[in-house]
Amino acid sequence: MSAADARRTRIIDLAAELFDQHGYAKVSMEQIAVAAGVAKPTLYHYFRGKDQILRGIHESFIDVLLEQQEERRRLGLAPADLLLGAMTDIFGLMETRRGHVRVFFEHHRELPPAVREQIRTKRNRYQLLVREALAEGIDSGQFRAVDPDTATLAVFGMCNWAYQWWRPNSGAGSAHTAQKMWDLVLRGLLAGPDSRSPAPAPAQ
Amino acid sequence: MSAADARRTRIIDLAAELFDQHGYAKVSMEQIAVAAGVAKPTLYHYFRGKDQILRGIHESFIDVLLEQQEERRRLGLAPADLLLGAMTDIFGLMETRRGHVRVFFEHHRELPPAVREQIRTKRNRYQLLVREALAEGIDSGQFRAVDPDTATLAVFGMCNWAYQWWRPNSGAGSAHTAQKMWDLVLRGLLAGPDSRSPAPAPAQ
Repeated sequence: MSAADARRTRIIDLAAELFDQHGYAKVSMEQIAVAAGVAKPTLYHYFRGKDQILRGIHESFIDVLLEQQEERRRLGLAPADLLLGAMTDIFGLMETRRGHVRVFFEHHRELPPAVREQIRTKRNRYQLLVREALAEGIDSGQFRAVDPDTATLAVFGMCNWAYQWWRPNSGAGSAHTAQKMWDLVLRGLLAGPDSRSPAPAPAQ
Repeated sequence: MSAADARRTRIIDLAAELFDQHGYAKVSMEQIAVAAGVAKPTLYHYFRGKDQILRGIHESFIDVLLEQQEERRRLGLAPADLLLGAMTDIFGLMETRRGHVRVFFEHHRELPPAVREQIRTKRNRYQLLVREALAEGIDSGQFRAVDPDTATLAVFGMCNWAYQWWRPNSGAGSAHTAQKMWDLVLRGLLAGPDSRSPAPAPAQ
């Protein structure tokens, strides 16, 4: 990474922390420059405006997820393992990119329309990758014949929602939490040999 | 409901729509007054400030969830049905209180500290109710011995995250989607009689 790239990344990381703490709307380029210890013209040299920093946060976040999942797919991992990989990645970002997470999930409407569209395309591609793993598991008979779209959204919900509650150093590491979530979505709550029968009827 | 209460509720609903569309920070009391078709002094008669409207959104949202779940508990429903009820309620709010949902999940930091604490207490109480249903299912042997905290957060994730993707009239109604999510968390993805054995090892 060049010195310029390293500085760019550092500014993005610091801005992400500020957006996370104070909300995107309330943070000024001035504050970002102060936090990064650079003069305002220097900051503008790297980013034409606040929305370009926001773009940097979104791109780095989704690019990591996409690359890692595409690599797993090339390796030919089994559906359950593709799923574990994706879940571990998302929880991992809560640990390594704390400040980025809320920004990624809550501030996409503030992106310039063309950028928003690019990010959306990448997010859709990532969603499709996870959906494919599920569909493959269903087709091969390893998974039940659930609706793959609902299952995809369930998996993302279990992982993504963690930005609201997961904290580093709150006990278990992110990979351990991801694995517990994975076990739950794979095996479900119901116990015992009758676990494949319909859920019990209401007690009333 | 008195005429004053009805007007109060209507203002809260309209403000929720505006906050949802434009973000809480960007909406002024002026705009809320215009949308509600009332003079600004009238608006201030009902709400001392924007944060009091925010408070109204939070209270009405969590109160509905709490009341309905406490009622189910009084009726002595089985754990799986307590869970279905909670999941159906949350998805139901996406349908009936569209504008409230994003505000409830994304704008709690903007509440005045004392109010924030009251809402947090109610949210914790609600979380505990859902956790109790899971713990009861585990204790009775109906559910596997999963970690009830992780399972609670998984269930909330599956439901709450839907505010990012669920749209009214996107096909199935909210209750149907809730039921598919419920089936998934109860029975899991894995198919077949060996579904209780550990997930397959990586293909590599």
